[in-house]
Amino acid sequence: MHHYDDTTDAMASLVLDYVRWRLREDPVALDGSATAEELNSLAPCLIGEEPNDPRVVLEQFTEVLAPRVISCDSPSFLSFIPAAPTKASLLFDAVVSASSLNGTSWLEAAGAVHAENQVLRVLADAAGLPDGAGGCFVSGGSAGNLSALVVARDMARHRGATGRLCVLASDQAHSSIASTAHVIDVDVVGVPTVDDRLTGVAVEAAVASYHDPSSIAAVVATAGTTNAGIVDDLAGVGAAARRHGIWFHVDGAYGAAALFAPSARHRFDGIELADSLVVDPHKWLFAPFDCAALLYRTPRLARAVHTQDASYLDAIHTDDGEWNPTDYAYHLTRRARGLAIWFSMGKRQHPVLPRPQARQCRRAGESWVWRTPIRPTIG
Amino acid sequence: MHHYDDTTDAMASLVLDYVRWRLREDPVALDGSATAEELNSLAPCLIGEEPNDPRVVLEQFTEVLAPRVISCDSPSFLSFIPAAPTKASLLFDAVVSASSLNGTSWLEAAGAVHAENQVLRVLADAAGLPDGAGGCFVSGGSAGNLSALVVARDMARHRGATGRLCVLASDQAHSSIASTAHVIDVDVVGVPTVDDRLTGVAVEAAVASYHDPSSIAAVVATAGTTNAGIVDDLAGVGAAARRHGIWFHVDGAYGAAALFAPSARHRFDGIELADSLVVDPHKWLFAPFDCAALLYRTPRLARAVHTQDASYLDAIHTDDGEWNPTDYAYHLTRRARGLAIWFSMGKRQHPVLPRPQARQCRRAGESWVWRTPIRPTIG
Repeated sequence: MHHYDDTTDAMASLVLDYVRWRLREDPVALDGSATAEELNSLAPCLIGEEPNDPRVVLEQFTEVLAPRVISCDSPSFLSFIPAAPTKASLLFDAVVSASSLNGTSWLEAAGAVHAENQVLRVLADAAGLPDGAGGCFVSGGSAGNLSALVVARDMARHRGATGRLCVLASDQAHSSIASTAHVIDVDVVGVPTVDDRLTGVAVEAAVASYHDPSSIAAVVATAGTTNAGIVDDLAGVGAAARRHGIWFHVDGAYGAAALFAPSARHRFDGIELADSLVVDPHKWLFAPFDCAALLYRTPRLARAVHTQDASYLDAIHTDDGEWNPTDYAYHLTRRARGLAIWFSMGKRQHPVLPRPQARQCRRAGESWVWRTPIRPTIG
Repeated sequence: MHHYDDTTDAMASLVLDYVRWRLREDPVALDGSATAEELNSLAPCLIGEEPNDPRVVLEQFTEVLAPRVISCDSPSFLSFIPAAPTKASLLFDAVVSASSLNGTSWLEAAGAVHAENQVLRVLADAAGLPDGAGGCFVSGGSAGNLSALVVARDMARHRGATGRLCVLASDQAHSSIASTAHVIDVDVVGVPTVDDRLTGVAVEAAVASYHDPSSIAAVVATAGTTNAGIVDDLAGVGAAARRHGIWFHVDGAYGAAALFAPSARHRFDGIELADSLVVDPHKWLFAPFDCAALLYRTPRLARAVHTQDASYLDAIHTDDGEWNPTDYAYHLTRRARGLAIWFSMGKRQHPVLPRPQARQCRRAGESWVWRTPIRPTIG
C-alpha cells in the first residue's frame, strides 16, 4: 500500500498512461450522463472483502464512469460557467496530488505557501490592493464569500453594532451570498439595481433609508454576475461603503479574472477599495477544480477571526510573522491548491522544448532518473 | 495553453516523470522548512511579462520549494496527525487533477457522484448508519463540522427554539467545533469529562442543569480526540441526545477510520446513533489532502439547509431523486475529491501485474494508446 515495488510500478504505468491520454485529448470530449439505475447496473461497487486487480477498477472508471461525467473543460461545454484549465495547470495539479502536498501552515509547508503567496500577490497587484494585502486559496467562491463575510460580521460587532446584522447586496449577487448570510446568521438586504448593475447611488440610498445603518456589516458587490457577467459600479459602491465605514466585499469569483485583460480592466475601477475579494482560478484563470483565491486588504483582521485555537496548534502560531494560510479562512488542514496556477502562470507561453535529459534523482541514491540538469538560473 | 502539441508533450514528460519519481520515493523523505527571507532569495517570483521555460519553473519547485515542505506522508513525520495516502490513492488523485474532475451535481457528474456515493455507503455501513444515510465529501473536518452543525442549528430553530442557541461539547473537542460555533453564532457549553472522555452521564447532567435545554442545538462527541485519540462514550452520549431530541454529531475526523479495525470496533459502539458524522480519509483512510467524508442520518434535512437557490441552479435541482453533493454541505462547485479513496479501496491488495497491453484509445481515432484490453468482468 505504501511501498513502491514492481506491482506498484505496473499500476503507476497504467494510471499515468491514462493521465497522459486524458491530457492529450484535444479537443476534450463533452461526455454525458446516466441515471442512478443505469450506473448501479453498469458500475457495481468494487469495494469489498476481496481485492480487485487495479485494471478492473481503472476500467470501471475509464469505460463507465468518466464518459458519464460532463467535461467542464470541453469546448463543447456551453452551460453553467466553464472551466478553462491549461494543460500546464492540469499537469501540475497532478504533482500536488501525487505529493499529497499540504499548505496548512508555514511550519509545515513553507515552500508551498511561498509559491501560493506569489500568485496571491499577482492577483492583489492586478486589483490594486495595497502591499499588505494577502489571504489564501480556498475550495471555491462559496468558501471564500463565507470566510470574508464572517470577518465583516465580526468587525461590525467589534465597532459596537448590536442586534440583528445585515449585508447589502443586489438580487444579482451569487447564490452563495444568501447561503453565507444564512450560515453566519445575518440578513441580506436587497439593493435595487439599474439594468441588473449595483450602483453607488443605490447603495447610498439604501444606507440612508435603512432603519439602523450601524447594523450593516458589509456591502457586497459582484465583479461579473453569474447570469450576465455584469460588473457592478465598484468605484461608486466602494466609495459609499467607505463613507459609512462599512466592509466592502467584492465577489469576483466569476469575472475578476478579466482584471488581466487591458480591454476590460476599466470595468473594475474601484476594486482596489475592496476590504475582501474573491477570484476563482478554476473559472477563468486556468486552474482545475477546486481553487478560489481569497484576499483581504488587512489580513490581520481575518487572522483574528479565523485562527483556530488549540494546544496542538500552538506550534504553528508563532510571533515571527510567518504566514499560515489556515488562519485566513474557515478551514484547517488544506491542500496546496494554489500551486497548479502558480506553475501555469509562471510558465505561460514557452518555446518548443527538447526532450528532457536524464539525470540522477535528487534525494535518493537510486539509479532511476527523472529530470533535467540543474540550470544555472536557479540558485 | 489548451491544446496538446509536441511542446505540451515534452512538458507532460517532464512533469509526469517527476510525479513518478515522487511516487517511487520509498520511504518518502521528511524534507524541511525555510524562512520567508530565505525563500524570497531562493525562489524569486517567476510570474511576469516574460514567459519561462517550464523546466525553470518545475525546477524551482523540485529544487527549492518541495524540499522546504514537510512531507506529511513520510514515515519520519511524527508531529500533528500524519497523512497515510496509499500509492493507489495518490495516483488516482492525479487522474482527478488531470481531468479537472468536478463532482458538483448529478447532472454534471453522474459517474463521479456514483463512485463517491459508493465510498460514502461503505463508511455508513461501517458506522451502522441506516440505508437512507448519505452526504458528500468536503475539504476537511472543519468544513464537515460546520456543514453538519448548521443543519443542527436550523433543526433546533425549526422545532421552535428561540434565543441564543448552544452546542454541548467537551474541552477535548477539536478546535473547529469552537470555530464553527463562532461562525454559525451559537455558544459552546463545556461538559466535564472523565479522563478526557465525554460520557453519557455527564451529558445527561449537563442537559438537566442547563437553564434552557430547548436551546441546546447539538451534542458533539469526538471519535478520536486530537490530543490523545480517545473515543467518547458514543453509546451513552448518543442515547442522552436521543432522549432529549437533540442532534447528535460525531466528529470522527481523526479516529473513525478505526471503525474498520475489528480490534477497535467496539470502541465506536453508539456511533450508529449519529445524526451526522465526519471521517477524514486524508488522515487514517489513505487519501491525499484534502478529503473529509460528511454523512447524515437523514440527508433531506441537510439538503433543506444547504441547497443554494438561484435561477442558474434550477437545472440541477429536479425532483427525480438525483443526488447532488453540492446540496449537502457549504459549497457549490467542488472537486470530486472522494475518487482517490474510491480507487484505493476498490483495489486494495492486488496480485503482481503484467505490464498493461497496448490498445487503441476509446474516444479518439488517433493511434496513441494507453490502456489494457476491455475485461469481460465489466459490462
